[in-house]
Order: sequence, then C-alpha cells, then structure tokens
Amino acid sequence: MVVAKDSYSPDSNGIILSPITNSIINLDQGDPVVFEPYWKKRSDEYATVIKGNDLMSYMSNPSDVCWFMLPETKDAIKRIHSVVGNAEIEDKHIVVGTGSSQLFLAALFALCPSDSPQPINVVAQAPYYSEYQDQIRFLSSRLFQWDGDAALYDKNEPYIELVCSPNNPDGVIQEPVVKSEAKGKLIHDLAYYWPQYTPITHKADHDIMLFTFSKSTGHAGSRIGWALVKDVEVATKMTRFLQLSSIGVAKDSQTRFVKIIGALCDSYNNFGSAESELFFQYGKRRMRERWEKLRAAIEQSKIFTAANYPKAFCNFTNESSETYPGFAWLKGEEGIEDAKSYLRKLNILVREGNRFGAGQNHVRVTMLGPDDVFNELLARLSNAKRDVV
Amino acid sequence: MVVAKDSYSPDSNGIILSPITNSIINLDQGDPVVFEPYWKKRSDEYATVIKGNDLMSYMSNPSDVCWFMLPETKDAIKRIHSVVGNAEIEDKHIVVGTGSSQLFLAALFALCPSDSPQPINVVAQAPYYSEYQDQIRFLSSRLFQWDGDAALYDKNEPYIELVCSPNNPDGVIQEPVVKSEAKGKLIHDLAYYWPQYTPITHKADHDIMLFTFSKSTGHAGSRIGWALVKDVEVATKMTRFLQLSSIGVAKDSQTRFVKIIGALCDSYNNFGSAESELFFQYGKRRMRERWEKLRAAIEQSKIFTAANYPKAFCNFTNESSETYPGFAWLKGEEGIEDAKSYLRKLNILVREGNRFGAGQNHVRVTMLGPDDVFNELLARLSNAKRDVV
Repeated sequence: MVVAKDSYSPDSNGIILSPITNSIINLDQGDPVVFEPYWKKRSDEYATVIKGNDLMSYMSNPSDVCWFMLPETKDAIKRIHSVVGNAEIEDKHIVVGTGSSQLFLAALFALCPSDSPQPINVVAQAPYYSEYQDQIRFLSSRLFQWDGDAALYDKNEPYIELVCSPNNPDGVIQEPVVKSEAKGKLIHDLAYYWPQYTPITHKADHDIMLFTFSKSTGHAGSRIGWALVKDVEVATKMTRFLQLSSIGVAKDSQTRFVKIIGALCDSYNNFGSAESELFFQYGKRRMRERWEKLRAAIEQSKIFTAANYPKAFCNFTNESSETYPGFAWLKGEEGIEDAKSYLRKLNILVREGNRFGAGQNHVRVTMLGPDDVFNELLARLSNAKRDVV
Repeated sequence: MVVAKDSYSPDSNGIILSPITNSIINLDQGDPVVFEPYWKKRSDEYATVIKGNDLMSYMSNPSDVCWFMLPETKDAIKRIHSVVGNAEIEDKHIVVGTGSSQLFLAALFALCPSDSPQPINVVAQAPYYSEYQDQIRFLSSRLFQWDGDAALYDKNEPYIELVCSPNNPDGVIQEPVVKSEAKGKLIHDLAYYWPQYTPITHKADHDIMLFTFSKSTGHAGSRIGWALVKDVEVATKMTRFLQLSSIGVAKDSQTRFVKIIGALCDSYNNFGSAESELFFQYGKRRMRERWEKLRAAIEQSKIFTAANYPKAFCNFTNESSETYPGFAWLKGEEGIEDAKSYLRKLNILVREGNRFGAGQNHVRVTMLGPDDVFNELLARLSNAKRDVV
C-alpha cells in the first residue's frame, strides 16, 4: 500500500493519515469532525477558561470510588443521561477515563481475576470493532486473550463478551450472542447510543456500559470517556487500573467536558431554545443528510450496497426514525472481492473487512469526517466503474 | 490500619486519602501543591481559554512520529529544556503521554519484543519508586516482569534497568548499576531533574528520558508527561501503545501545558523579570525552606534522621547548592524498627520502606503537600517522644 509521503505510518495496522493528502482521501478513522460547525457557531458560549492555579492536584474527591473524577464531571454525566434517557444511572458507579478505550482496558483488568490459571477469552460478534483485538493483542496479558467471533464461541471456559450497540462497524443494534454454558461477563460499548445516530428506544441498563465525549458531542481531542458500573468492586478495580496507567484523567479536559455538557443540557432545559438550534437535532440532521447522499451515490454506480436499518420510535426526539450510523459498512457487489483494494485505486482509504472479522468484500467508511472529504467520496463513488485500472 | 471514614480505600497498596481527615495528616502521596501559591498570584496571566470548537479532532500532526501531539506541545518541550539546560533535545524524538506513568508503560512495551520467549526482567536500584513494581505486577504481561533490586541482578538474561534521578524516594543522583553481561536497556525517569529540587549539573542525554508537568511546575491534575527518545523505532512503538491505550493524550491539557510553559519561558527570556519572581527560583526557595524546617524538627526529637546531600554547582541558577528532594526519606533511629507504625500513632500517614525494597525502619514523606499539613508534620515530629502509646 502506498502511503502519502508527508504522513506517518506506525505500522500497517495503525496508519494515521491526514483527511486529504494530495488526491488521497482518508476515511479510515472515525474522527468525528462532522459536528464541528455546530460548535464553531457557539464558540464563545461554550468556551472554557482555566486559571493558572486551577486543577493542580492529582486528587478530585477522595470520598468517591473514582477519586480523580471531579464532582462536577459526575454531575454532568448523570445530567446528560437524564436529559437523553439513554442509560439508567440510578444504581451505577461512575468511572471517568482517558477516552472509552482506556476504560475498555480497565474493564478487562477488573473482570479478570489476577490469579486465574489461564487467560479469560474475550469475544465479540463479527463484524466487531477492529481495535478490540488490536488492544488485547498488543498488551499480551496473562489475564485475558482475544478469542474472536462471539457467535462461534463454544468453549466451556470463562469468557467476556463485548457488546457494541449500535455496532461499530455496521450500525446494528446488538444483544449478547454467546450460547456457551461457561461463566460469562459482559461489557457494553454504547459509544454510539446517542440520538444523532439511532433512536433512543430505552434506558440501557447493563453491568458495565461505556460512553465517550468523542462520539456524543464530537469532542474527541479531549479524550474523555466514562463507564457506568453496577458492581462497586468492579468500579474500584477499574479505578485502580486508571491510577496505575496514568494516575487518573486530565482535569483540564474534565472541566471542558463539564462546561460543554452543562451548557448543552441547559439548552434542552430552556424552553426558549428553538429545536433546530439544539445539538442532537442538528447532529441527527447532519447524519441523515449524509446517509441520504451516500445511498444516492452508491445507488448510482451499483458497485456497493449498504444495509437498511429498521425504523424505531425515539423517546428523545419523539419521532420514528432510522439508524444513521457513524460508519457505513459497504459491501462490494459481484466482482468486487477485495473492496479495499478497489477503493484504493480510486485513492480512497478505508478499513478492510478482515480487520473486523468479516470478508474482504466489506469495508468500513467513516461518516463523521470533514465535508470536503465526504463530498469527494460521494463524487468518486457515484462515478465509479466496475473496472478500474 | 484505620482509614478515615469519609475516605475511599481501593486496596491496601493504593490508598488515596485527603491531606487532612480529622486529626490524621496524609503525607503518603506526592501531590505537588507546594507550588500553588506562585500560580495563584499569576492566576490570570497564566489562564488558558479553549473555545467551544477548539481541539475537536483526535489528530494533531500526522507528519510527526507522535501524531496526537500538538506542534505547540513539541515546541514548548524543546523550549523549556533549552531554557533550563537539563536535557539534550537535538537528536531526540518527543512523545507526549497522560503523565509520565503512561509513558513508563509505553517504554516497557516499546523495549520488549512481542515475540520474546520469556518476559524481560525489569529492575531498579533499591530504594526504588514503589509504583514501578505495582504497575508491572498489575498488568501481568507476558512481555516483562518485575525482578526487584538492580544492584542484585546477576541473571544472564535480557533486562531493563530503571534509573530514577534524583531518585524517588531518597533524592540521590543515580547511575545504572547492573553489572550483568546480559543485554540491558535503560529508562531514565528524570521527573525531579529540575532546578527547584537539585542542581542542574549537565544536560542529561540518554536513550529514553521521562519528564512530567506534575513535578516541573506542579500541574499534576493536567496529566501531561513527555519522553525524549533517541531511537525512532522506540518512539513509534511508544506512540502505538498510547494510541491503543487511550487514542492519544488530552489536547485541552496539552494546550494548557503550552500556555504555562510558554509564559514561564517568556519570564526567563524577559530581562525585566525580577529573579525573585521567577518560578524555579521561587520553587527552590520553597523547597529549601521546607528542608531546613524539617531538618530542625527531626534534630529536635532525634527519632529520625535524613541523609545529607552533596553540594554541586547549578548551571541554571549559577550557584552552588544542595539537593532538596520532593520526598524526605527518613530513617528511624535506635528502637524505631517500624517507622510507619510509629508515625501512624502520631496520626501521620507515610509510605513504608518495604514498598521501596528497603527496610521498615525507613519511610517516605512528601515534601510537596499543602502548608497546613507540612506545618502540622513539623510540630508533631519536633515534639515526638521515643515511646508513644
């Protein structure tokens, strides 16, 4: 694979590139910049000011399980779930992390006994988020190991099943699928369970639920994630992992999270707000527009198809609507066995199916990137021919 | 051990407590709030403003090895080392982390081959920073394992030696000590190699050097650390670890780091600045005063002693001076075999010698805490009697 000269490639599984380099457009990563115009228009209203002597201590609240979490962070998390209605928070402990990636690892360490005679198997239904296995394999832990597709799991050994819903990469609403009689534990990755992506049909209520600032409002650079955890022992061990990994979570980012989530909740609680001016309504409009344009583009060339999603009633927006996932999971039609290589010839970078435990006729394409990149994608897809030299 | 009721104790090796709870004073952790008054006086001058739409992307600079590091972060790191003269930066790659703790783990993963037939032994000369072994043991990696005191290492197996200088807990300037003929690699933890703690005698120049915002200016809550790394492959693998652990480092904190380090460097480059108003001079004055008071207090009761440090010429402050470590490493004199328990009876919490691979007649006491806690420590130490009921 050709990598643009001015870009840096750590290795073949972790390429980080600019959105556009010469004529190459990169839709591999899910950088959520699609929502940036909303925040740009409200740049000052949502500004955060941190004084020279603010937030200097490691400590935030020694009486909380998660001692490095600002009390205001906890309040903001409770408030946003109460406004959106996407998770049950009443009986939960909250742990803040450096993005939900760090919390995913924290949850694995918390669920695996340190004296286990063999590593616990970690599985997820294919197609599964490609980073799960990359994270687990890189760590090479004695405590857990990647074991692939949850739908195929039939060992009589303890396991952890990852349930990502709506699923990355394919946007499907997921339930646990392991049928084994062995003892299993669940981690629910709900990064995309927000109204701009999918109807909010119920308050999610699971043992461990992961959420992130990156995908809720688009503030990925702040690296704030949070876990809602039922069992205090699990929350405690997750906190211990975060203490030993990074002595907690950046308070500057926590403070910004508090400001933005607080003002966003205010806008919903203020009856004077015009609905079109509200963030999740804006976000949903953006996602729907992009999905309509993408479907039109692939319909024109008939090289790729994308699944349709069932409609459901959203308790938050009070309307019935489709899912508009953060990624398109495209299937190459007849003759397109290697969808990634096909798109590479059109100078389009995407993530290939086998990274997700699926066939190479599938690729994942971000729906969250900048407008110019997305529009260029539409142009290239709609003009695509079956034979590219 | 009695734990104050309003505090949370994750486990016996990771207790996080308030500085004062009822009459118990906590000098276990090294929370660097001693420098806070300096920043409070300059609260507005060093303020950071982040607009609603700033810093939203994961990406910072795709052409840098460390793609999530803001270019301004890199410039600030180069500039502070050039102002202070404590590290050679010319031939180094820079990797930013969520504190130096995360970079320590990143360095271990980067130095251990993923296909190694057995875990690499990690050692540090005793007394060593207690968190090294806690971090390594918690992770339970197949790639590396804790092997204790570097001075005793005599295996003919590959190893990594951690060199912390000035050393946490005892403030001693350290060199590598392993005598084995096996292949060894070094990680230098230079968190305390700043002018307020020790004379800057030379530009440190090693393969991997770790620094942190927490101990340089006292902004621990921001969780910003950085590594200066000679080998691009090592820097690349460290970056990959940070990508998989937390998809990079909070940009809000990076921005605040840039603001504070930039203004601090400006104050040194501006010839109008009064020396007494400069941060490192202030910090050194604070540390010297505390050390003089501590020495007077322990001299009065003669229960504990602290080592004396040789004087050296500091190239930065242009004067000869002692080391004023961030921790006091106190030795219980005759009859005080268990120094931690002795101090516990005085309602003083400290970290015990065996956590550092040393005897229980030693304890580590932070010199960086709030004034009221430090003054209470002085009062209790100076009035201490040999027999406490």
